[in-house]
Amino acid sequence: MRTIIRDTLNKVGEKATIYGWVRLVRDHGKVTFVDVRDFSGVIQVVFVGNADAKSLRSEDVVVIEGTVQQRKAGTENTEIETGSIEIFGESLTVLERAGDLPIDMGAAELNVELPTLLDHRSLTLRHPKVQAIFKVQEIIVDAFRNALKEKDFTEFVAPAIVPTATEGGAEVFKIDYFDYNAFLGQSPQFYKQIMVGAFERAFTVGKVYRAEPSVTTRHLTEYLSLDAEFGFINDFMEIMDMVEYVMRRIFKDLSEKGEKYLKLYGATIPQFSDKIPAVTMDEAKEIIFKRTGRDIRKKPDLDPQGEKDICQYAYEEFGSELIFVTHYPTAKRPFYTYPNKDNTEITDSFDLIGRGVEWVTGGRRINNYEHIVENAKKWGNDPEALDIYLQAFRYGMPPEGGFALGAERITMNILGLQNIREASAFPRDMERVDVMLRDIQPEEE
Amino acid sequence: MRTIIRDTLNKVGEKATIYGWVRLVRDHGKVTFVDVRDFSGVIQVVFVGNADAKSLRSEDVVVIEGTVQQRKAGTENTEIETGSIEIFGESLTVLERAGDLPIDMGAAELNVELPTLLDHRSLTLRHPKVQAIFKVQEIIVDAFRNALKEKDFTEFVAPAIVPTATEGGAEVFKIDYFDYNAFLGQSPQFYKQIMVGAFERAFTVGKVYRAEPSVTTRHLTEYLSLDAEFGFINDFMEIMDMVEYVMRRIFKDLSEKGEKYLKLYGATIPQFSDKIPAVTMDEAKEIIFKRTGRDIRKKPDLDPQGEKDICQYAYEEFGSELIFVTHYPTAKRPFYTYPNKDNTEITDSFDLIGRGVEWVTGGRRINNYEHIVENAKKWGNDPEALDIYLQAFRYGMPPEGGFALGAERITMNILGLQNIREASAFPRDMERVDVMLRDIQPEEE
Repeated sequence: MRTIIRDTLNKVGEKATIYGWVRLVRDHGKVTFVDVRDFSGVIQVVFVGNADAKSLRSEDVVVIEGTVQQRKAGTENTEIETGSIEIFGESLTVLERAGDLPIDMGAAELNVELPTLLDHRSLTLRHPKVQAIFKVQEIIVDAFRNALKEKDFTEFVAPAIVPTATEGGAEVFKIDYFDYNAFLGQSPQFYKQIMVGAFERAFTVGKVYRAEPSVTTRHLTEYLSLDAEFGFINDFMEIMDMVEYVMRRIFKDLSEKGEKYLKLYGATIPQFSDKIPAVTMDEAKEIIFKRTGRDIRKKPDLDPQGEKDICQYAYEEFGSELIFVTHYPTAKRPFYTYPNKDNTEITDSFDLIGRGVEWVTGGRRINNYEHIVENAKKWGNDPEALDIYLQAFRYGMPPEGGFALGAERITMNILGLQNIREASAFPRDMERVDVMLRDIQPEEE
Repeated sequence: MRTIIRDTLNKVGEKATIYGWVRLVRDHGKVTFVDVRDFSGVIQVVFVGNADAKSLRSEDVVVIEGTVQQRKAGTENTEIETGSIEIFGESLTVLERAGDLPIDMGAAELNVELPTLLDHRSLTLRHPKVQAIFKVQEIIVDAFRNALKEKDFTEFVAPAIVPTATEGGAEVFKIDYFDYNAFLGQSPQFYKQIMVGAFERAFTVGKVYRAEPSVTTRHLTEYLSLDAEFGFINDFMEIMDMVEYVMRRIFKDLSEKGEKYLKLYGATIPQFSDKIPAVTMDEAKEIIFKRTGRDIRKKPDLDPQGEKDICQYAYEEFGSELIFVTHYPTAKRPFYTYPNKDNTEITDSFDLIGRGVEWVTGGRRINNYEHIVENAKKWGNDPEALDIYLQAFRYGMPPEGGFALGAERITMNILGLQNIREASAFPRDMERVDVMLRDIQPEEE
């Protein structure tokens, strides 16, 4: 009968049989300490005069029988939940031996460069600090989902195979689709708008694809997009309110369930006051000019330094690590973005900027049929290929809008990771799909 | 101030302003009845001598102010939650007019053929009976997720872009991936096994892709796969126990939250006794021979009629609409399937069959490094392309296994839908990706 490691805490003085992986072995001559992990935690096992225990190595798969006992005073380990106890090992079975490890998996820090981290991904995913990243991401995605379900949003499945390249034609992957071409969707935008027609409030959690032709620290070719959209808004400020509501839930759940993971990264929940402050794009550029002397007032939107500067402003003026920048220029937003009623050069749209980078993007959408058809054509889209999308407007679409965030980006922003690849279990870029593509495929001519 | 339609039940005698879509208009001369829907429900609005109300058509987007009142005795509508009340309409604003509808959206049944259903997908998704399908699917996916989270499974994101075609080379989509080829994953199998090495218990909800070169009623090229995998099993029966646990949760949640949707389809929750019965493949074929005289004992596994027959047996013998068939032949299962220790011609695997068709597939996997490498090669895979997968075994993998179910298939099976396309909001097949591909693309030479 297996004892889950977490449950050993209730079994002091009793026998226990644990199943797991060797995390680390410390050989003190006659006494061997073996840390073992399973899905529920880590515990120390003490073997005395056991040659088999001496031969154990990290990642060996073992079954250990023994007696749970209190640790000697002064030898407790506050780093693990079972740190007040240990198992006195009585029998040991090795189910599978691990091969030679290219990395010291027992260390508190992995201390490897990114290529090494990814070349040995199936191993590095076993390190507690790496696992923390994906526990944090799971909490973020759950929080997004639960927050919106409580507001009566319907979760739906958006397709990723799409009939036409729509948002930025160059950065789309083409699929050989039987006798035709198809493409990998760059966003579920059209589908979530269609779902507003059906369910009024809809969201989807799914992969989107960008054929980003460069290797940067902030782009993946495949990432998890959290997308929400809802109808009957009076103003795009209501969308920002919904973003704030969702972000609050994410932060609340992270502080309740994710504290130990954040601690490993010295990360904190972003602070903001009663309400996330908001400035228009023009105001933002003016503020930056006044504060820094750097004049980007003629540029269409904020450059990376501008995003840093406006965050600095938000922090100093409002004690907020997050700030909305609103009214992005029409030229910088997709064809479905709602133009501002007083100035069609700008849109009823926003980005949420935090800690110097973009966190969320959103806005109101055009909901009138003639208007969306006109804009689709103006932007060079084929209305026939967009038929299902345009139908949603032909048959009555209310004023609506929504927002999107990337799960990996939010994870990266919260934990302060240096490279977004760390926030994806299996990151894809133009060179790597698990392995380096040049190593397994001849380049095409 | 908007009143959500559901909340009108608490506002009898009060003013309310509702926002929504016209579901149907019944013009009785001086009196016009307008059913309006929003995300929370449907309510009847009564207009007296209102010409604008007479001009309303289904799917018009409206704002209506009025007074909530009890309906006259005998005029209640038990089909809708607000059926005991109605709104006496006092003002009407049309936000957007719907175009001419190609389908009668006000009818209780859509009564359209599948091509029509899909040609007008953004409209047909608004019909209550169509919406019920996706509400049921949402309950199924949530139940799968919540059941496994309660068992300490970690949810992770499996990639869909993969470096090599692995499970059935012919039915895989190829992607133009920068200077290389990549492929769309046919299952998250490798990744969930890798995650067993990391988290011991893992699941993922994500899209998988099959280049199914035929149009059938049971295949989609893109579908939502619910995949779970876990370590430290003693026997593959433990995987079947986990399947049973998950199915119980799905059925429980459907009966608690989905009853009204099931009712629209005259659908019932599958019945089974204390435990889902199980027979081996050989036993199943023998039973079928004895019961029907049809001899499929020389065939490797059950044909479609065989699946129907074994379900008939389960129902008559055990009162169960579900039955496990175990020990599928090695030749019919992928290279990672665990061979039975007494007979390597068969595997420690199973299908859950219900109502005559497959519901779930699963089994134990090979967990020894040398064994999996040998099998990968024997099945013709390139070990270099599988490097990240094989690593998981090189560095210690416990005995493990798992299972998978398709969200659309389970939805179809429970509701008794005739075609799996009905169970996908945006179904893709070899001819259709929203629109018929031949209509928007020249065929490639």
